[in-house]
Amino acid sequence: MSTTTLIDGDRLWRSLMELARIGATPGGGVNRQALTDLDKEARDLFSSWCREVGCSMRTDPIGNLFARRSGRDDTLPAIMMGSHIDSQPTGGKFDGAYGVMAGLEVLRSLHEGDIATACPVEVVAWTNEEGARFAPSMMGSSVYAGLLGLEQALAVQDEEGKSVGQELTRIGVRGVPDPHGPPAAYFEAHIEQGPILEAMDKTIGIVSGAQGQCWFQLTLKGRPSHAGTTPMNLRSDALLGAAAIVMELNRIGREFPPGCATVGRIQAAPNSPNVIPGSVYMTAEIRHPDDDIRAIMEQKFKQAIDVAVAENSLILDMRKVLEQPAAPFNAECIDKVRLSAERRGYSSMDIVSGAAHDAVALSRIVPTGMIFVPCAGGISHNEIESATPEDLAAGCQVLFDSVLASACKAETAGS
Amino acid sequence: MSTTTLIDGDRLWRSLMELARIGATPGGGVNRQALTDLDKEARDLFSSWCREVGCSMRTDPIGNLFARRSGRDDTLPAIMMGSHIDSQPTGGKFDGAYGVMAGLEVLRSLHEGDIATACPVEVVAWTNEEGARFAPSMMGSSVYAGLLGLEQALAVQDEEGKSVGQELTRIGVRGVPDPHGPPAAYFEAHIEQGPILEAMDKTIGIVSGAQGQCWFQLTLKGRPSHAGTTPMNLRSDALLGAAAIVMELNRIGREFPPGCATVGRIQAAPNSPNVIPGSVYMTAEIRHPDDDIRAIMEQKFKQAIDVAVAENSLILDMRKVLEQPAAPFNAECIDKVRLSAERRGYSSMDIVSGAAHDAVALSRIVPTGMIFVPCAGGISHNEIESATPEDLAAGCQVLFDSVLASACKAETAGS
Repeated sequence: MSTTTLIDGDRLWRSLMELARIGATPGGGVNRQALTDLDKEARDLFSSWCREVGCSMRTDPIGNLFARRSGRDDTLPAIMMGSHIDSQPTGGKFDGAYGVMAGLEVLRSLHEGDIATACPVEVVAWTNEEGARFAPSMMGSSVYAGLLGLEQALAVQDEEGKSVGQELTRIGVRGVPDPHGPPAAYFEAHIEQGPILEAMDKTIGIVSGAQGQCWFQLTLKGRPSHAGTTPMNLRSDALLGAAAIVMELNRIGREFPPGCATVGRIQAAPNSPNVIPGSVYMTAEIRHPDDDIRAIMEQKFKQAIDVAVAENSLILDMRKVLEQPAAPFNAECIDKVRLSAERRGYSSMDIVSGAAHDAVALSRIVPTGMIFVPCAGGISHNEIESATPEDLAAGCQVLFDSVLASACKAETAGS
Repeated sequence: MSTTTLIDGDRLWRSLMELARIGATPGGGVNRQALTDLDKEARDLFSSWCREVGCSMRTDPIGNLFARRSGRDDTLPAIMMGSHIDSQPTGGKFDGAYGVMAGLEVLRSLHEGDIATACPVEVVAWTNEEGARFAPSMMGSSVYAGLLGLEQALAVQDEEGKSVGQELTRIGVRGVPDPHGPPAAYFEAHIEQGPILEAMDKTIGIVSGAQGQCWFQLTLKGRPSHAGTTPMNLRSDALLGAAAIVMELNRIGREFPPGCATVGRIQAAPNSPNVIPGSVYMTAEIRHPDDDIRAIMEQKFKQAIDVAVAENSLILDMRKVLEQPAAPFNAECIDKVRLSAERRGYSSMDIVSGAAHDAVALSRIVPTGMIFVPCAGGISHNEIESATPEDLAAGCQVLFDSVLASACKAETAGS
């Protein structure tokens, strides 16, 4: 096993930029939504590149696109890399595309170096990770991991009434059930989509897992009344209660790093300058990589709400509308990422994924690891999303090392 | 001078209810907006009732409608009562109408009792107090008091482009400049439009004056970012800053009773559940009967804003959009109200007017007093606005006593 093989960062960047031309927006981003003709064009380009280096291509019933490079023993479970080729309507050039192109660059480097691996190596472009055109997000990887029913996913319609099933057929990517079992391990390289690596001046994020999260909707009802004639001690001000909740939730988020907590949406009624707000609708979300700690955060949140409601004589309606458990990644996969970063001399740090990825779905069934690289300002889901060729190359190198360390294991053991 | 004359509470109530039929809404309220045909109908009804008791009627150039009862010496300045006959679009039966009908009941009682006063006694229905159809509010009384230019007021248009001047002419109430000087004193009876008298179980509010107030518009700009991937200590959350300001403003309002402070309107952007709010627009208002104390409240408010802005790395845009000085009422007028309530055995308390009234405009030029009576739940500007016949009668009795004490002064001094 060669630990000196270097991936080609320039080739990676050129391929990323060429792929980004498919669905390019005037703002410098990409609009290449799931199962559109542009999605198909990108899939075909990726497929042609993979075939050039000797891979076979296949799709499964939800359209996940697999490139497979044979190993010495093709009966062994593969080592898999992947991410997604579909984008947000005003997405960037790197979100998802980086992980797929990084996987391609690993295949190219293995091919160029004539490196034989014990088990097969695959790169997969998961169908509809973004969930922009068809909900939910992470659709292809969730079906693959058995978290979402195939029929249910096929039936989902977009705003024009076209179903996933119809569109898969239309663009000709509706394949057959996967003849191989799940992989032995899955690695995904991705831009961080957050500001931490850049702020800490680190090149590689060694991702320990993804946060669990829960979302709530709250309605607080008080009493609308005249702002001039209602004394301060005779008020039932729903906005005052909401403000206390916003501040308490923030304190709770700060109390349990690296968790976070946010009120993103708020609506007051009657929303008139000289009327005390009689009711407020607000959302709240709490995230933490440890579900037990998140449960504590939720409990403290509910206590804070009770206090605000009592202090302002409000009536509360509260619903939890999302509950996603944390997804810790695999210790061995994490170690491989760490080891590569150290050996290659890249500055690195442990980091938790604040957002969901295909890797989260995969982590429910196979040992999984992720590699983060910085993106400028932490900005993503935005046409100005950007990352440097050097950082992208470093992440790809770590991906290569991690995959090779995994794919040669059987060979090393048996040889 | 008779101190035993009782006004007729039943007659007052019946007249109020008859007036309320003009513009009556299905919800039990009144829609009788300024200078509509319904306004004219109400003015005519009022005028006919006044004439029945020997008054002469006149209007001035802004349509203020005066009923005048002669005194022994008509060269003396009159004692004036009044309020307004126009209503909110979904107004109640008592807001404004009570003060005019109470004044009418005083005239009727003087007439019935064949009581001669030294100076004339007048009741005025001020044009367009509500400012609902034509802005600003308190239009007629403000022109009368020289606070608003006549030409400026005549030129104001409603939503259909009709001007005040045109409508005054149309309904035939555009009169000539007042041949008499300002009154010697002005008294206005009004429902409290707040919850204090009811909460304290008092019948008469001895109004010391009206609060000064100021209104602000604030825009706070932070940085919109992903709620899951942005650590708590790298946020610039405009809603968190706004929440701190809401809470601090409430504390400031509580610190300086009987002042008050309110955030009535708030808008966050992008207002999405999983995005940290990048910007917030909010209004704020501060009221206090003492302008010096209000200045302190404003200063503390600005300090609180500065802290919230700094703590959250926000950019602030703040404008003061309204500044109205406090309007203390006249000590002698206040004493007359207090004395009557005591002599008549009505429970009473000192109170500050939280809202503006025609009396506020009059107070800038003549000695002024107001009499409050409770309204159910403090509710006003609402079709369900209500007050009891007993409370309304008590307020009218106090009005009668106060006016008579003022109108007979010259006689007592000279006789």
